[in-house]
Amino acid sequence: MKVQRVEMFVNAMATPADTSGLQKLADSGKIKPDTLVALVGKTEGTGFHDDWGRVWADVALRDWTGKFLGIPVDEVAKHVIFVLSGGCPGVITPHIAAVSREWVEVPDGDVDTGREKMLVVGRAGSDPMPPEEVGRMGQIRKVGEATHRAMEDAGLTDPKDVHLVMVKVPGLTTASIKDAESRGKTVVSHDLTFGPEGAGSYANDAAALGVAMALGEVPESALSDGVVRRNWDLYSEVAMTSSGGEKRHGEVVVFGNSAWSRSALRIGHAVTRDFIDAEGVRKALRSAGLHFNDGLPDEADLSRLVHVFAKSVIPGSDQIRGQRITLLDDADAYQIGKALGGMLVASVTGRTTNYVSGGERNSHQGPPGGNIVAAVVRTNAI
Amino acid sequence: MKVQRVEMFVNAMATPADTSGLQKLADSGKIKPDTLVALVGKTEGTGFHDDWGRVWADVALRDWTGKFLGIPVDEVAKHVIFVLSGGCPGVITPHIAAVSREWVEVPDGDVDTGREKMLVVGRAGSDPMPPEEVGRMGQIRKVGEATHRAMEDAGLTDPKDVHLVMVKVPGLTTASIKDAESRGKTVVSHDLTFGPEGAGSYANDAAALGVAMALGEVPESALSDGVVRRNWDLYSEVAMTSSGGEKRHGEVVVFGNSAWSRSALRIGHAVTRDFIDAEGVRKALRSAGLHFNDGLPDEADLSRLVHVFAKSVIPGSDQIRGQRITLLDDADAYQIGKALGGMLVASVTGRTTNYVSGGERNSHQGPPGGNIVAAVVRTNAI
Amino acid sequence: MKVQRVEMFVNAMATPADTSGLQKLADSGKIKPDTLVALVGKTEGTGFHDDWGRVWADVALRDWTGKFLGIPVDEVAKHVIFVLSGGCPGVITPHIAAVSREWVEVPDGDVDTGREKMLVVGRAGSDPMPPEEVGRMGQIRKVGEATHRAMEDAGLTDPKDVHLVMVKVPGLTTASIKDAESRGKTVVSHDLTFGPEGAGSYANDAAALGVAMALGEVPESALSDGVVRRNWDLYSEVAMTSSGGEKRHGEVVVFGNSAWSRSALRIGHAVTRDFIDAEGVRKALRSAGLHFNDGLPDEADLSRLVHVFAKSVIPGSDQIRGQRITLLDDADAYQIGKALGGMLVASVTGRTTNYVSGGERNSHQGPPGGNIVAAVVRTNAI
Amino acid sequence: MKVQRVEMFVNAMATPADTSGLQKLADSGKIKPDTLVALVGKTEGTGFHDDWGRVWADVALRDWTGKFLGIPVDEVAKHVIFVLSGGCPGVITPHIAAVSREWVEVPDGDVDTGREKMLVVGRAGSDPMPPEEVGRMGQIRKVGEATHRAMEDAGLTDPKDVHLVMVKVPGLTTASIKDAESRGKTVVSHDLTFGPEGAGSYANDAAALGVAMALGEVPESALSDGVVRRNWDLYSEVAMTSSGGEKRHGEVVVFGNSAWSRSALRIGHAVTRDFIDAEGVRKALRSAGLHFNDGLPDEADLSRLVHVFAKSVIPGSDQIRGQRITLLDDADAYQIGKALGGMLVASVTGRTTNYVSGGERNSHQGPPGGNIVAAVVRTNAI
Repeated sequence: MKVQRVEMFVNAMATPADTSGLQKLADSGKIKPDTLVALVGKTEGTGFHDDWGRVWADVALRDWTGKFLGIPVDEVAKHVIFVLSGGCPGVITPHIAAVSREWVEVPDGDVDTGREKMLVVGRAGSDPMPPEEVGRMGQIRKVGEATHRAMEDAGLTDPKDVHLVMVKVPGLTTASIKDAESRGKTVVSHDLTFGPEGAGSYANDAAALGVAMALGEVPESALSDGVVRRNWDLYSEVAMTSSGGEKRHGEVVVFGNSAWSRSALRIGHAVTRDFIDAEGVRKALRSAGLHFNDGLPDEADLSRLVHVFAKSVIPGSDQIRGQRITLLDDADAYQIGKALGGMLVASVTGRTTNYVSGGERNSHQGPPGGNIVAAVVRTNAI
Repeated sequence: MKVQRVEMFVNAMATPADTSGLQKLADSGKIKPDTLVALVGKTEGTGFHDDWGRVWADVALRDWTGKFLGIPVDEVAKHVIFVLSGGCPGVITPHIAAVSREWVEVPDGDVDTGREKMLVVGRAGSDPMPPEEVGRMGQIRKVGEATHRAMEDAGLTDPKDVHLVMVKVPGLTTASIKDAESRGKTVVSHDLTFGPEGAGSYANDAAALGVAMALGEVPESALSDGVVRRNWDLYSEVAMTSSGGEKRHGEVVVFGNSAWSRSALRIGHAVTRDFIDAEGVRKALRSAGLHFNDGLPDEADLSRLVHVFAKSVIPGSDQIRGQRITLLDDADAYQIGKALGGMLVASVTGRTTNYVSGGERNSHQGPPGGNIVAAVVRTNAI
Repeated sequence: MKVQRVEMFVNAMATPADTSGLQKLADSGKIKPDTLVALVGKTEGTGFHDDWGRVWADVALRDWTGKFLGIPVDEVAKHVIFVLSGGCPGVITPHIAAVSREWVEVPDGDVDTGREKMLVVGRAGSDPMPPEEVGRMGQIRKVGEATHRAMEDAGLTDPKDVHLVMVKVPGLTTASIKDAESRGKTVVSHDLTFGPEGAGSYANDAAALGVAMALGEVPESALSDGVVRRNWDLYSEVAMTSSGGEKRHGEVVVFGNSAWSRSALRIGHAVTRDFIDAEGVRKALRSAGLHFNDGLPDEADLSRLVHVFAKSVIPGSDQIRGQRITLLDDADAYQIGKALGGMLVASVTGRTTNYVSGGERNSHQGPPGGNIVAAVVRTNAI
Repeated sequence: MKVQRVEMFVNAMATPADTSGLQKLADSGKIKPDTLVALVGKTEGTGFHDDWGRVWADVALRDWTGKFLGIPVDEVAKHVIFVLSGGCPGVITPHIAAVSREWVEVPDGDVDTGREKMLVVGRAGSDPMPPEEVGRMGQIRKVGEATHRAMEDAGLTDPKDVHLVMVKVPGLTTASIKDAESRGKTVVSHDLTFGPEGAGSYANDAAALGVAMALGEVPESALSDGVVRRNWDLYSEVAMTSSGGEKRHGEVVVFGNSAWSRSALRIGHAVTRDFIDAEGVRKALRSAGLHFNDGLPDEADLSRLVHVFAKSVIPGSDQIRGQRITLLDDADAYQIGKALGGMLVASVTGRTTNYVSGGERNSHQGPPGGNIVAAVVRTNAI
């Protein structure tokens, strides 16, 4: 039977249009047109919705991928999922991680559940989400359903084996709001930003709750339009979500561990208890299989660390461990909040090529005040 | 004979004008008009030179101190040194640390060098520094000389016992430049900012080199006008400096450990090797007397930690451990750079009331790429 | 009978706490404790809700006023209305305008409606506005009612004679939202900012619609909770409103012209048709009585101009006269939007001491895309 | 004999990579591969040196031009000069102006100096400028020399006929500074920014003085390394300059009027007396041939206006017409300063597609406190 062998390669980018790292991977045969499944990265620029660094990177990477796969650019999205998070304030190195998935034939007898579980990846698209569903139950359910199918594609059945779910969903635009209202529908917000009542925040959070529902982190009965961005006790510990006005469908990529995998990588995750909790980052590394116990990872441990994916959502409270901070008042809180997450992770991993997205205030991605950290580690076992 | 007993009390501030914490210290007798020697703190606001949060805090704190000491406001500076660093981006809690110094009589026989060295503090003012000396050898020498006298005031003779030297010196203003030039003198820069060629940066860095010279960290023979902000291999590991156009003299406060002290506190310091080096922060804690060895401080350790003073100077290079970062290009690098230092310290100390100043690019305060961290710890020995 | 004589004095401020201009007015007898009715100004600082420049100015001005009136600071608000708008980006000089109102006895026969109408001012407080009314009909009605009483206080009966209504109303806070929800009430928004769905914007806009209703600019039948920040065709041409979480009541100041006035000043207003419409500013000057016709005001005209009050609300559209602008995407649109209004006015008035508030996106203060401009002019007629 | 016919076409751009307007010009035959001489525009983005909107626009426009001319991209610079100014804060529409120059044969007898002078354009490259010359006399002289040759190319001999000189020169980079110092040379600044002592500012200002020298606005005897960014009484009224670290040579484009031209366009210029001087903008329009006298241009006048080029340098003083402004202290003064220039121009031209560059503090481009404005107008005379 066929099982997965997943690899992940992290390349720093010298400019938003720098595809030289990918080209080297292609030249060396490490990624192939039929194994490349996802490009996940951080692009330099402002990180705002008109961040031309991110837009240019998107254009350049799709261009390169189209040529690599020998297909027109507008078909690239069918084959490779792009997750580009804009903004590298502070100590976040602009980079792109290429995820490849090979199907390897193994004798049926060779597959048993006694093996150590290793990295698998699965993808799925959702049904179309009309604007009136954005940030509401419609979006939650469709993300939940797509998450189930992505787990299936990954060969995962137990939600405990899922450690990271990256989701992209439609947000709202002036045009899509007009469309909804012309059909007599309401929309969740007229604020198109990622502010506390912004449509972008509602879309991201509905997507997170969709993952939480699919994985059983939140019972469907607890969910309704009214809880989105209201009841922060409902959240996912593995969902990292984003939204864009140009999209019509949701896209889901699931990363987990499976005994059926032949990968040399394993993934794990944890959540930080608050914004300064470096121990939460270390827990994620341990969850993925670094065994440095109570203390600190040493160089040998860190050499086995392949990549870290972290959120850096700004807490909704102005208190950390009983002391007031002024972050919520900072005019550039969006940049600073993201930068601080980058520092928290880098101070543990000893490197700056970490995927850290965030800057928004409050989220159903992770518990109140805390953030999600997932880590991918190379093991010796194959 | 009389020896010092130094205490340090850290109070969070709810607004720039919040003196309630100081009032409680006064009411409880922990600080007295004749023991209060310094107020060192972080004030909320933008941190820029027109940061009204810092200015308002300065006015309110001097007002309070004048009333507490029963003297006119304009005489406060003679009795209490103020070091207020503006800007609390991210996870830095606005706070004020009151430093008190009591002189206690001990029997002469009780004083010997076999005792554990404990915290002492000393102060000195410098000769006036005309504008043409700012950022040059004149300023370096006068800070050096004042550092020697502040060590004397502290009862310190060995530079190894000095762990933190806070310095304030005159910078340049439009008026003082005009004055210098009218007398046929040149000035170090016409840029009044803290940018790479700014007069503020030159003043701060000359002050740091003055400390370095006084402590023998840099030989006088290596110093000249030309090395300031050019030869980054010359630096102090204990100098934290600031400058203001309104000043005419330098002010120096030295913190160190002495066997003649009867304090319950001890100070130590270390430098980080680069911008993400959390281990450098831990080294400072160990240097001050927390014995958590190779791993991490536990809660008992941290409960003995009184305060941390750290710089967060942005590195001059765009590389950290071989990877590119874009911090130097960030429009708000000044805020982000300071915020990142706050996170690095808070992720180790588990609290947000840390004194972290910085945001400038490159400095003789600490080694290239690294930063100074000093820590004050409470011991059991008296 | 007693009629009003209103004066307005504009003083630049050198710092947020600079009361020297007011002191000179007091020393010269131009303002007296029983004639000072309002202080309206622009304070330097960031203009954000934690703008310490504005807060410090407020503290210093109330302090000064309390001493001037010989009353405790917390009673100042009963006698003098403060409208301090934070943020002077670009070419807006920080300043404070003192408004004084004297009651002069005139023979009954001397009062007839044939006289030229001159400046009068009136004030009123509203009933308390609980949090559930903020941004909704409750707030609209109470502002409308207070506007009527302020007109009465001014001696104005015809809405056409009203040219400027400054209003301050309660906004929402975390605490007041909690209070409302604990009583089973909903609130208009959980976003505490002045963003497009922010509670501050809803409060400001409900206040503007309250003025519009009182003046007959919008029929009460057209108003409902649902039109606030939705139907931009409903607006006032004379309302300038602000809100603060600390307030419990609304405050209204009405400026208009009356035949019963003995002032040497007259007020007028106009609206700009779009964001670059300098002609709209000139129309306001003409409306107040500068007769420069179709062309430009000359120096003699401008020497009679006492003050300009203008809004600079950012348009909701990204098009100006058919061309796209990127202002809506600017990260610092709030500052830039306010600064641009300052330039538009200054380029016409030839001075920088203009009251210009704004920066928010879309408003019922003025027509879609346009802004309100009011001008006060000194005439020769008494 | 052959004389010039110059045209200028202004196209709004919908994104940084939008070449549709140029394509339409090409399709309609308005620009041809052998007549396109310059592309001058404003690109959206932050306007900072790492503004990816500008970089992406540059890549996309060069790409398009290479295809249009049928030549490799790296040869485009030999045929078409690109002046892309980043940042469209406020009311500046992103746009590109295509300048075409056709050579038309006219009978020799038809050419006489009695004709009205009309638009001509000329270009020249300079000798290489090593880093030690940047911001100093070497750069000044080489720009001056190239300006002479560009005038020659334009067929201009009288400096009074020159109304706009756009210049691009090399700035400094970390690498070029190292190169200079390795050869024992000094450089003008180690600050790579456009701050008051930044290398970028020195390069721009040396280029402006080079133009001033070539046109006789400043005598060569008044020039030396020491006056650059020191003696603001030396300046050009027609130079708009920029610099980039990647360049090795200077490039100069001269716009002027000549009796030998067969263009339907004419250029003029003026300088504003200060930052709020709308009359200065109107003077530029009159200089180019709009005859609206003392008042305001009407719609017919403005319909003949083809384009405006303006600088918006922030004044070095914090006073405008005797009143203090806080612009120099604004953290985002660079953006605001540029935006204000855009408003000043748009409020006069009634449109937002104006070329406005600036944001730097003080410059030899224009008089102290004032700015350069050039206007191109369509006439009826051919």
